[in-house]
Amino acid sequence: MMSSLQHLNPTVKGIRESAHSGLQSLAAHVTQEIAQGVQKPFKEVIDISSGDPHKAGMKPISFVRQVLAVCLHPELLGNKTLPLDVRLRAQRLLEVCDGGSVGSYTDSSGIPHVRQSIAEFIMRRDVGVHSHAKDVFISAGSQRGLMVILKLLASGEGDTQTGVLTPRPCPHTLPTLLDDAGVALVPYQLMEDRGWAVDLSELHHALKCGRGGCNPRAIYISNPGTPTGHVQDWESIEEVIRFAAAERLLLLVDEVYQDSVYGQGKEFISFKRVLFEMGKEYSGTVQMVSLHSLSSACMGECGLRAGYMELVNMDPEVTHFVDTMLCTDISSPVTGQLALDLMVNPPRPGDPSNDTYTQATLSQNAQQAHEFLNDLPGMSSQQAKGGIYLYPRLHLPSEIIEKAKELEVEACVLYCQMLLKEEGVFLGAGCQNGETTGKHYLRLCILVPADTLEEVLARLASFHLRLMDMCPYPDRGVKGRDIGDTL
Amino acid sequence: MMSSLQHLNPTVKGIRESAHSGLQSLAAHVTQEIAQGVQKPFKEVIDISSGDPHKAGMKPISFVRQVLAVCLHPELLGNKTLPLDVRLRAQRLLEVCDGGSVGSYTDSSGIPHVRQSIAEFIMRRDVGVHSHAKDVFISAGSQRGLMVILKLLASGEGDTQTGVLTPRPCPHTLPTLLDDAGVALVPYQLMEDRGWAVDLSELHHALKCGRGGCNPRAIYISNPGTPTGHVQDWESIEEVIRFAAAERLLLLVDEVYQDSVYGQGKEFISFKRVLFEMGKEYSGTVQMVSLHSLSSACMGECGLRAGYMELVNMDPEVTHFVDTMLCTDISSPVTGQLALDLMVNPPRPGDPSNDTYTQATLSQNAQQAHEFLNDLPGMSSQQAKGGIYLYPRLHLPSEIIEKAKELEVEACVLYCQMLLKEEGVFLGAGCQNGETTGKHYLRLCILVPADTLEEVLARLASFHLRLMDMCPYPDRGVKGRDIGDTL
Repeated sequence: MMSSLQHLNPTVKGIRESAHSGLQSLAAHVTQEIAQGVQKPFKEVIDISSGDPHKAGMKPISFVRQVLAVCLHPELLGNKTLPLDVRLRAQRLLEVCDGGSVGSYTDSSGIPHVRQSIAEFIMRRDVGVHSHAKDVFISAGSQRGLMVILKLLASGEGDTQTGVLTPRPCPHTLPTLLDDAGVALVPYQLMEDRGWAVDLSELHHALKCGRGGCNPRAIYISNPGTPTGHVQDWESIEEVIRFAAAERLLLLVDEVYQDSVYGQGKEFISFKRVLFEMGKEYSGTVQMVSLHSLSSACMGECGLRAGYMELVNMDPEVTHFVDTMLCTDISSPVTGQLALDLMVNPPRPGDPSNDTYTQATLSQNAQQAHEFLNDLPGMSSQQAKGGIYLYPRLHLPSEIIEKAKELEVEACVLYCQMLLKEEGVFLGAGCQNGETTGKHYLRLCILVPADTLEEVLARLASFHLRLMDMCPYPDRGVKGRDIGDTL
Repeated sequence: MMSSLQHLNPTVKGIRESAHSGLQSLAAHVTQEIAQGVQKPFKEVIDISSGDPHKAGMKPISFVRQVLAVCLHPELLGNKTLPLDVRLRAQRLLEVCDGGSVGSYTDSSGIPHVRQSIAEFIMRRDVGVHSHAKDVFISAGSQRGLMVILKLLASGEGDTQTGVLTPRPCPHTLPTLLDDAGVALVPYQLMEDRGWAVDLSELHHALKCGRGGCNPRAIYISNPGTPTGHVQDWESIEEVIRFAAAERLLLLVDEVYQDSVYGQGKEFISFKRVLFEMGKEYSGTVQMVSLHSLSSACMGECGLRAGYMELVNMDPEVTHFVDTMLCTDISSPVTGQLALDLMVNPPRPGDPSNDTYTQATLSQNAQQAHEFLNDLPGMSSQQAKGGIYLYPRLHLPSEIIEKAKELEVEACVLYCQMLLKEEGVFLGAGCQNGETTGKHYLRLCILVPADTLEEVLARLASFHLRLMDMCPYPDRGVKGRDIGDTL
């Protein structure tokens, strides 16, 4: 039985407690208070702690939703108020569903037609580098795909336990995932003062440290960087590939925000494209998994749960087990799979439904938030070039840091708790992104309507200035009111 | 790296090879041959090896599809050609989605409103026995929920390895799942001659045998039985509960076909209902997980991927880890979650969309197939009372059995391969259902249109009679043509 924790799977018991779920509960509590009529200086909690654009008020792409509506209810094929390309595409997609229904199972690795569409998309993106549908695996979100790979890698214990080199900071969902897979997290530091660039000597340093306690077998890279907003250039990618090749590490490349590079003079370059320009010595040997997702900036269809991974240079015997493990999910959600087809194959200019995505909101928000945050005392933000987050640093007064110690929470979490209670703004705490260096950071998603961002920044400034006023910098030696008041 | 199998996770390497995937490849191959113009005595492969009703041509419930179409494309709220109750329900469901969009993430354990709907459904079903939304966990299919529980249970190795008492025959997806979780399968035999009933002495026998090699900590029960079609009565359920209580086993109850009991005088009785009539001694202590699914007979929405489990008497500390593990999926597909709400809360008599499900097809198909199969020489079928499968026994000629040995496949798999090649009918092989007793069985899904079933039975009879003719019963000592001809 499971009457006590004593007999639970030790790996499961080892999954770290996420500070995020504590903040989520607090946000739910504050929301409930408002509903119950408790007076607050704000009308609602605004949550921009995670990338959830529709929740924040971003609108879905009509073409996607129209096609899916027709696929669900095919009688709409005859509805002439819907654009012709919508109905034609829906008809085509229904043809690739068994029994012409989104209610049928699909192959565990995805609908063959969609896998083919994805492979063709990758080839176009990578200027002709070959991609094969058989190497593309669809899953219920990119996180599920990553989990399958991590589970395959997991083995050993103590200094033989599989380790994964992981950026610091990393996506806030990653540490829990590594724990769940039973894999050790080996951090490598990103360079804040260089806009969070990847640094080769840090990779070597991390690998060396990691090898003392585990067996590092893979390196995780997020490009564009979550939550840093860094976009790697060709040279940096080449450097990482050479490193992985020399050290025989599997490359786990999170490229889910490949559609959202907005920094001036920046473009998205895939690891695969660089790999295949490095010559056969690399392109024929370096093993790589590249992840993409329907929760990308352009689509933002997080709730439909679909993503894919492309495996490069993977042994067919290993690929076989990827398939076997996806089989235990039976199949991925069909509406999500069909939406993936629309993501990689959107309407073309001239088609009736050419409501293409504009990166303007993201780019403007990034610039505005960056400038605003840097103007606040005790806050500094690197300029993001891509992705959907900013990750500013907090220079906190010693009172806050001491109070946090007393309360046994991270100082960044205490900051987020206070901000939530006093201003109804829910931001992410840097410790969730794997921060362990004693520095303090915040995480905010900027893929939100411009007026929402303005509201968030105004509330944040109000709280932050109050906090700074009552807790001045230690070197000024002035004491403000007790911060315990707000807790 | 993952350059060889050598360094793969040993648990993953231990996942058994499913005979089903081999047959699936063969079916795909035959289908491809037809597309390429190869002459066959049939126009298409009919696959009734698994429960995939829409693939087989069953129609989805319009109400469900209409509501989901509106949720995806809310402009349809103004479309008056859609019934009023459809639009009202869609509006209500959109209100419970963050940001009013199915594109937003939900809580990892599901949308609170849907969990509440499910709890209310369970209370109505169990004639008032309390159910709480906090004990209901939604996942991307019931299989995902089950996997989370199995992963929690998994620990130890050798004779301390967690074991799960598992019916023989069991659902064909279960053995792989147990392997993937790293849990040992301890079979208990169901009683074929009593319509595949659960037998108490078999449970004791299995437990005793199991304890020699592992640590059995749970018992899996499928009711209505997959693939047996058995429906447990009150006494049988009580017996199993007493057994689980005495032996301190967690009850894992697969009740996904609770909506499809059609045997005369039979009704579905939930384990929970019985448990709560057995008095506090049981209802306050026996730990239970009950599974239900959107892939149920009535909905058949397999492709939308949603299911739920209700936890009974689970320690809150353990429940916490259920939540933690579901968190690694981030959230379940939203369209599926909304469809669950429609499943547990369908239109009422008098509502515009009262196209209620009729069990007539299932009941008629079960009766027809049962009689037909029993009339064939060398085939015997128990009468199904519920669920969506028949599981007839094959009495195979010795030539087939010897040929199978020579080819190193199970005889039932060889039978299915030949049937697929010669008649284009894809049935499941009993060995996939955990058969290890040397007997041979077939599995066929009967939730298909009546004319499809007729076609399947005609082709099956044609093949079977041919096989029986060329390979007469061993005691008749007549030798037919070499069966290798058809391979």
